[in-house]
Amino acid sequence: MKLHDLGEFPFLRSLRDRVPADPRVFLGLGDDCAVLSLPGMTLLTTDAMIEGVHFRREWTSFSTLGEKAFAVNASDIAAMGGEPTFALLSLGVPQQCEVEDLDAFFNGFVRAAEACGTALIGGNMSAASCLMLSVTLLGQAPHGVITRSGAQVGDDLYVTGTLGDAALGLRLLQEERDGPAAQAVKARFLCPSARLAIGREVAARHLATAMIDVSDGLLQDLGHVCEESHVGAVVEAPRLPLSVAYRALLGEQDWSVALTGGEDYELLFSAAVEHRTAVGALAQSGGCAITRIGRIVPQAEGLSVRGPDGATYTPAYAGYDHFRQA
Amino acid sequence: MKLHDLGEFPFLRSLRDRVPADPRVFLGLGDDCAVLSLPGMTLLTTDAMIEGVHFRREWTSFSTLGEKAFAVNASDIAAMGGEPTFALLSLGVPQQCEVEDLDAFFNGFVRAAEACGTALIGGNMSAASCLMLSVTLLGQAPHGVITRSGAQVGDDLYVTGTLGDAALGLRLLQEERDGPAAQAVKARFLCPSARLAIGREVAARHLATAMIDVSDGLLQDLGHVCEESHVGAVVEAPRLPLSVAYRALLGEQDWSVALTGGEDYELLFSAAVEHRTAVGALAQSGGCAITRIGRIVPQAEGLSVRGPDGATYTPAYAGYDHFRQA
Repeated sequence: MKLHDLGEFPFLRSLRDRVPADPRVFLGLGDDCAVLSLPGMTLLTTDAMIEGVHFRREWTSFSTLGEKAFAVNASDIAAMGGEPTFALLSLGVPQQCEVEDLDAFFNGFVRAAEACGTALIGGNMSAASCLMLSVTLLGQAPHGVITRSGAQVGDDLYVTGTLGDAALGLRLLQEERDGPAAQAVKARFLCPSARLAIGREVAARHLATAMIDVSDGLLQDLGHVCEESHVGAVVEAPRLPLSVAYRALLGEQDWSVALTGGEDYELLFSAAVEHRTAVGALAQSGGCAITRIGRIVPQAEGLSVRGPDGATYTPAYAGYDHFRQA
Repeated sequence: MKLHDLGEFPFLRSLRDRVPADPRVFLGLGDDCAVLSLPGMTLLTTDAMIEGVHFRREWTSFSTLGEKAFAVNASDIAAMGGEPTFALLSLGVPQQCEVEDLDAFFNGFVRAAEACGTALIGGNMSAASCLMLSVTLLGQAPHGVITRSGAQVGDDLYVTGTLGDAALGLRLLQEERDGPAAQAVKARFLCPSARLAIGREVAARHLATAMIDVSDGLLQDLGHVCEESHVGAVVEAPRLPLSVAYRALLGEQDWSVALTGGEDYELLFSAAVEHRTAVGALAQSGGCAITRIGRIVPQAEGLSVRGPDGATYTPAYAGYDHFRQA
């Protein structure tokens, strides 16, 4: 059934029936505003996904799109060491959209949200020429927030998981390439996970001096940490964690995509050298690789990448900016 | 200068410098999340404006667009009797966009926000094929929230200001018509005001049993109140408040646009009959007309409109739904 046959309000009523009641919510979907009591510090973040810019409908199911719309926002909460609590959704939807597709989107979103204790409390829907999915997430940080601005000269630099897979996946989707390695990296682009458990543990154990999620490419996001913390950084390219699929597709020595590719949603953090053992223990218990990839240096030394011979390595491409021309 | 010449991050830094510091904000623009302490009950609402659906660039300045993007969300806060406190902005921007235009948009938004004590605390910006402006507002309701669900049989029905002007303004913009009356109604569409002061007073004086803002047309929004409150309603068409411009353009007897036109952002509320004097006093002190337009009846009687002879009046058109075909 097309959305224009059902109508906006019947669809929204059907949605309200599908969202489980939540004792934390004084007033949820269905009034002018949601109403909540939010004790302690509240985290807030918003991010959008736009058809033709962030995704193409032929690449993904609507359910996966819903999961990703949640994950990219949850990743910002994870990067502060927090836990997501409540979500608002603002959708622009083409009039010809199938109700079943929109149902699948909502179900994917709500399932991903519920899996980490997050309730959908509000939103709105309007017509648009392409699908436009804007999410606002609220969160809490019971162990305090980790900002971008606390990195100290001498700190180690760590990153979770592997880097460059999502950007490689996007490239292979665009090139319509297939095979097991291609499948693996495409999945990283289409259905990323937010590193919520690791981020929370980093906060609970007070390991990090600064943290950010790698959404615009390692060098660009590390650049934000350097700028906010007034420090420089050295990244050792041979230490970068590359997945089996990445190595199979690009080889062992091509670090460009790992350094500059966006949308990995891994966590990058700085930590004092005396926490090396504790970070190792967290990687073991957290079930997720955490790799030491470099260190924080004085601001005057800037941000640099060292190749295998110790010489400066300059990637061909500097990271993603939605607007700046290459 | 085009945005793609300046780049996303330099633009965002320039924005951060323009947003005044706010002692209520623990962490504002420039990290993965904003961080706030939010005592009491927090209101949350989100709404989007999309180029080609909600506005055309040739109709409006970017500064006015910024003011409207704030006002349409503030109206949802007003409709609960609340005050807006914090804002997040999620923008989709075409790459060819002029930096000056985007500056003007932000300045308009921030100026409108500051004028009612609201701080911009976060946001994001990404490329898009058309301008897409999604706002999330937080608010507080020191006197308690007014929902849609409390209307009682026998209550009076009131509306602030005048109805139908914005929809008429949109029509005249589309038809490229001009003249003093056309100018007046176009301004109501392009630059609406949220009825924050009246909404807050209605809450402070405990006048209303239910309240909503008229954004999708009086009949549709009154229908939401009836549904949530399990009541019906009678609207007396001759009592509907029509502006001088509306009467000049459509005459005294054409209530269709006032009954069904969207985007007026006036407040509609139900109140017990014994509050008639108090509502009149509020209209005097608040400097804004408040008109009694009908009453709440039992649910079985449904929602009806009475013409001047007391007979049922049926408008040609039932109100705005973004998706449903006429």
